[in-house]
Amino acid sequence: MSELIERLRAGLPSDAVVTDPDVLRSYSHDMASFCEAGTAAVLVLPRRTEEVQHVMRVCTELRTPVVPQGARTGLSGAANASDGCVLLSLVRMNRILEINPVDRYAVVEPGVVNATLSRAVNEHGLAYPPDPSSWEECTIGGNIGTASGGLCCVKYGVTAEYVLGLEVVLADGRLLTTGRRTAKGVAGYDLTRLFVGSEGSLGVVVSAVLALKPQPLGQLALAAEFPSATAASDAICRIMEQGHTPALLELMDRTTLRAVNAMTRMGLPETTEALLLAAFDTPRPADDLAAVGELCEAAGATEVVPASDAAESEMLLQARRSALVALEQVKGTTMIDDVCVPRSQLGAMLDGVAAIAERHELTIGVCAHAGDGNTHPTVCFDANDEEESKRARISFDEIMALGLELGGTITGEHGVGVLKKEWLARELGPENLELQRSIKKVFDPLNLLNPNKLF
Amino acid sequence: MSELIERLRAGLPSDAVVTDPDVLRSYSHDMASFCEAGTAAVLVLPRRTEEVQHVMRVCTELRTPVVPQGARTGLSGAANASDGCVLLSLVRMNRILEINPVDRYAVVEPGVVNATLSRAVNEHGLAYPPDPSSWEECTIGGNIGTASGGLCCVKYGVTAEYVLGLEVVLADGRLLTTGRRTAKGVAGYDLTRLFVGSEGSLGVVVSAVLALKPQPLGQLALAAEFPSATAASDAICRIMEQGHTPALLELMDRTTLRAVNAMTRMGLPETTEALLLAAFDTPRPADDLAAVGELCEAAGATEVVPASDAAESEMLLQARRSALVALEQVKGTTMIDDVCVPRSQLGAMLDGVAAIAERHELTIGVCAHAGDGNTHPTVCFDANDEEESKRARISFDEIMALGLELGGTITGEHGVGVLKKEWLARELGPENLELQRSIKKVFDPLNLLNPNKLF
Repeated sequence: MSELIERLRAGLPSDAVVTDPDVLRSYSHDMASFCEAGTAAVLVLPRRTEEVQHVMRVCTELRTPVVPQGARTGLSGAANASDGCVLLSLVRMNRILEINPVDRYAVVEPGVVNATLSRAVNEHGLAYPPDPSSWEECTIGGNIGTASGGLCCVKYGVTAEYVLGLEVVLADGRLLTTGRRTAKGVAGYDLTRLFVGSEGSLGVVVSAVLALKPQPLGQLALAAEFPSATAASDAICRIMEQGHTPALLELMDRTTLRAVNAMTRMGLPETTEALLLAAFDTPRPADDLAAVGELCEAAGATEVVPASDAAESEMLLQARRSALVALEQVKGTTMIDDVCVPRSQLGAMLDGVAAIAERHELTIGVCAHAGDGNTHPTVCFDANDEEESKRARISFDEIMALGLELGGTITGEHGVGVLKKEWLARELGPENLELQRSIKKVFDPLNLLNPNKLF
Repeated sequence: MSELIERLRAGLPSDAVVTDPDVLRSYSHDMASFCEAGTAAVLVLPRRTEEVQHVMRVCTELRTPVVPQGARTGLSGAANASDGCVLLSLVRMNRILEINPVDRYAVVEPGVVNATLSRAVNEHGLAYPPDPSSWEECTIGGNIGTASGGLCCVKYGVTAEYVLGLEVVLADGRLLTTGRRTAKGVAGYDLTRLFVGSEGSLGVVVSAVLALKPQPLGQLALAAEFPSATAASDAICRIMEQGHTPALLELMDRTTLRAVNAMTRMGLPETTEALLLAAFDTPRPADDLAAVGELCEAAGATEVVPASDAAESEMLLQARRSALVALEQVKGTTMIDDVCVPRSQLGAMLDGVAAIAERHELTIGVCAHAGDGNTHPTVCFDANDEEESKRARISFDEIMALGLELGGTITGEHGVGVLKKEWLARELGPENLELQRSIKKVFDPLNLLNPNKLF
């Protein structure tokens, strides 16, 4: 038994240290394609903060890299193993420690599943809005690490806006407290926000104070069919320009609609080029939907179909949530891009993606949190076809280049991980990147926390 | 002429370099009491980014400290001069560069006055919500530096939530770009947020991309009179617990009401112990106010008076906005505290402040952004009375200690500056403070940017 394993076992329950190579392999990567994963030395599954501190102390002494993990539903390879690393899975730290309806916050451990928290706070008349597509599986710790978004962000904002305070185990095992339980607070630099989206590279989050909102009213949706993705984009721009506040505003192109139908037999319209979903949770959603329907028609919608009730609205939402998984079945493998552009550039973005698909003779399905300008062009390809795989990778990169050209970002909500490392430098520029590296050194001078991710 | 002045003049228009001692004195402090201010060497008033870069290059070469300033309406001494410093006033960089209704953002220079921006975006059907009491004077750059709050934050959040991206001149004169113009984005560590609330200690903001919201509906307010501050606090807790979303929820105690009446002759009720103001900008504000009125009565309100119209609502709001200035007139000088507690602790906080006032035989008026738990206990004293001044300072500190005991923060929105330096360490703890200092060193290795503020 190696010194590493021996030292880890000295401070962890026996079931919390796993060396079975098959298990290690399955924990060695997240859901991203084209991302290398190394061979981990060991998997640890602590249940308590003290155990996480023990792991970090041992790894600091032995100079062993550590890869913190949630449910590994990420799409950028940020949770992938590096050779000889300790995989530090936080899924067993899954207690909801407090739900406070007067102060509207919850205190949770990092392994709490997003949907579990959502349902728990619902029972108190509260909501935890951020809702990534993987919300039934993904953990709050993973959401914090990647600064996750979701469908309702167009109205309710992303994970970052809900993290009030953190407890973080630092690289050397010390425990850091950041932030607050109060609605406001400006005492010093905002270290809390620095950890959000840091992909486990600055410390290991062991508890979080999350802001909650009052539970919204039930939402009502409409679907609008458009003859082109750009017509749908125009509608989106007009909806936002007119001051509407939809609870979601989503787009699926024809490729996506077909894929969802093939998987779910939902019977979404396949003759249309783009389907726009808009939903409102306002006091009079039907009024808002009527106004939005008119804007859609003015922008060229061929059909506007309001959901008749909450159940039908929920079905449309499910269709959108299943889009990425459905697209995976088109040719076996996907590369899901995550380019966010100013929404006024949505039309240009979608046109550009279509041109890239045509140039490379590829199927690229587009679904998008369109109200936020956050597109997910999804390249479908056969991973066994080396030449097609190569074209897939090239088109994926061209999509990011296009996004940057249009004033956008290479990642709206999925993060950088290993997938977009080279692109981060291009987006940030040398001054910003240098500062990012220096901040990493402040928190992790030995470069042990999720090394070789981000930059 | 000193080398400093000579070198500064070489890259700045002649009217942008001021050495008149009277002018320097007037620019050497903000609005905080009890905060030392040094003697500045020179005041510079650049109009362009290149001029700011010139100033920073010269100051880096000559190792001269720089104190960035907005309108100097701050309340923590963060803009106060240090001996021999360059006062770098950004008030002349006051252009609104872009207002984009589709993408809902504005790009502004730091010297734009908050109210000027608000009115300009209103014309496009948009709103820039953060509204510090000084909004008619304070600048966006100052708001970013102090992470300002305001009255509407209980519904719309604070400055930090509206800053999407920045251009910042670094200590050595290089220009850094952070963030984005998109609704979402997670590319790398969130440097944007790190600058918000950093009180000019990490860099000089020369432009900002600010998120905008659709302009809310007109608001309708009510005033509720309570026999005690704690009864009013109970009402606030019930209002928030029941899931209401007021656009403001403010508290003024009797001392404050009297002071406002004395200054404005508004005729606010002086026989009541605490006046609660609640306003809604929902589609049916009267319904919300009726529900809130009932909760107030259940919590012991002796009278609930809905404003009859928008004008009367606005008058109540003006009363609240003028509270701090009015309290200043009670005994000539005030120390305005800014302790934010979990709102469930508001009652305990207000009782505690009353006990502190009694113990030290002082007048302490309390007004509060009560919906956020953000209290402004304001110690009124005669600065010429040395003994009373000493008691004022002691009580001010005791109020912060009480806030920390109740799980709060020493500053909800005014910042640390020089006023609360000693208290920051106490709130953050040694790990956090050490990291804060290390981050400061990353951005400003020579410690030239607003040195000796924060920590």
